[in-house]
Order: sequence, then C-alpha cells, then structure tokens
Amino acid sequence: MLVLITYDVNTEDAAGRKRLRQVAKQCVNYGQRVQNSVFECLLDPAQCRMLQSKLCAIIAQEKDSLRFYYLGNHYQTKIEHFGAKSGYEPEGVLLV
Amino acid sequence: MLVLITYDVNTEDAAGRKRLRQVAKQCVNYGQRVQNSVFECLLDPAQCRMLQSKLCAIIAQEKDSLRFYYLGNHYQTKIEHFGAKSGYEPEGVLLV
Repeated sequence: MLVLITYDVNTEDAAGRKRLRQVAKQCVNYGQRVQNSVFECLLDPAQCRMLQSKLCAIIAQEKDSLRFYYLGNHYQTKIEHFGAKSGYEPEGVLLV
Repeated sequence: MLVLITYDVNTEDAAGRKRLRQVAKQCVNYGQRVQNSVFECLLDPAQCRMLQSKLCAIIAQEKDSLRFYYLGNHYQTKIEHFGAKSGYEPEGVLLV
C-alpha cells in the first residue's frame, strides 16, 4: 500500500536539525521524496509499523510531528501534482 | 471529500516568501493546517477545482510544487498522527 508520510521537525537548534536529517534518512530507505518534508512509501503493514517505530524514536514528541496517510493500493488516481518536479511513481516509473 | 494539499515553495527571495504566504492564506480559507506546509480541506469537486486554479495562479510553476491527495469521504481511518500538535478533524472535532 502507498503510505504518505509528512513531517514537521522543529529545527531551531542543532539537535532539531539532526533529527530532521535522521527522519529524512529513514524515509529515503523506504520510499520517494516528493517534496521537502513529504515522502511516498510503498509498504506492507509490517514495514509500516517498523518505519513508524523508527521515526517515533527519532522525533521529539513535544516539538515535532509526523503524519501517516494510508492511500491503499489504488493510489494512482488519488494524486495530482502541479508545478516543479513532477512526482515520482513509487513503483519506479516517472509520472508525466 | 477530504483533500490533502502539500506544497513546497522556494523561499530564496522575497517574491517566494510572498508566494508562500499567499498559498497558505488560500489554503486557510478552505481547510485546516495540520503541519507547516500541509493542509487538510473538505471540498466538493467544484471547490477543489477552484482552489487548484487559485493556487496554480500563485505558484511559480518552475520553482514551486503543489500536490493534491484525494482521501475520499471515509478518511478517518486513513490518517495517523504522532508527536506534537494532535491533528485537527476537518469537520471540527479535535482528534485525540
């Protein structure tokens, strides 16, 4: 299933900037970056729980936020992109 | 239907920062800000086209990007939030 992950990490201090890099690094392992703080990942339920657990261990619960959106398997018609950088198709084929 | 809108606006110059403010201002008119550059809006198809048209007129097509995700009417089970600031329920009831 396609899981959209969006995050806000408070980067006021060096620790926050480190958390931001760590969150992005984990997400890169599982999916495609489509915007600065937005990843689309093709995950099965076990992978999804694993990634949630890793990200929750990185973020500062009181300062940062993570959102997971479950778009299912039929996500192609559920996404539209406008402007720069056309979206990546999570299974590897570039959308045009 | 719930429409998730995510955007990346290039804020390297003053014009970009103005576009960012304008995009956020339009989105605020239609929905709830759940993260810095992420809005959840309850829209009918006509409102959705209207908002797309307004946002596309604001952004710099070669520098900024907008993504629309269509989560349908049964979106409550499709969203999970972790960390700071619990999400807003688009129909006005705070999720806990």
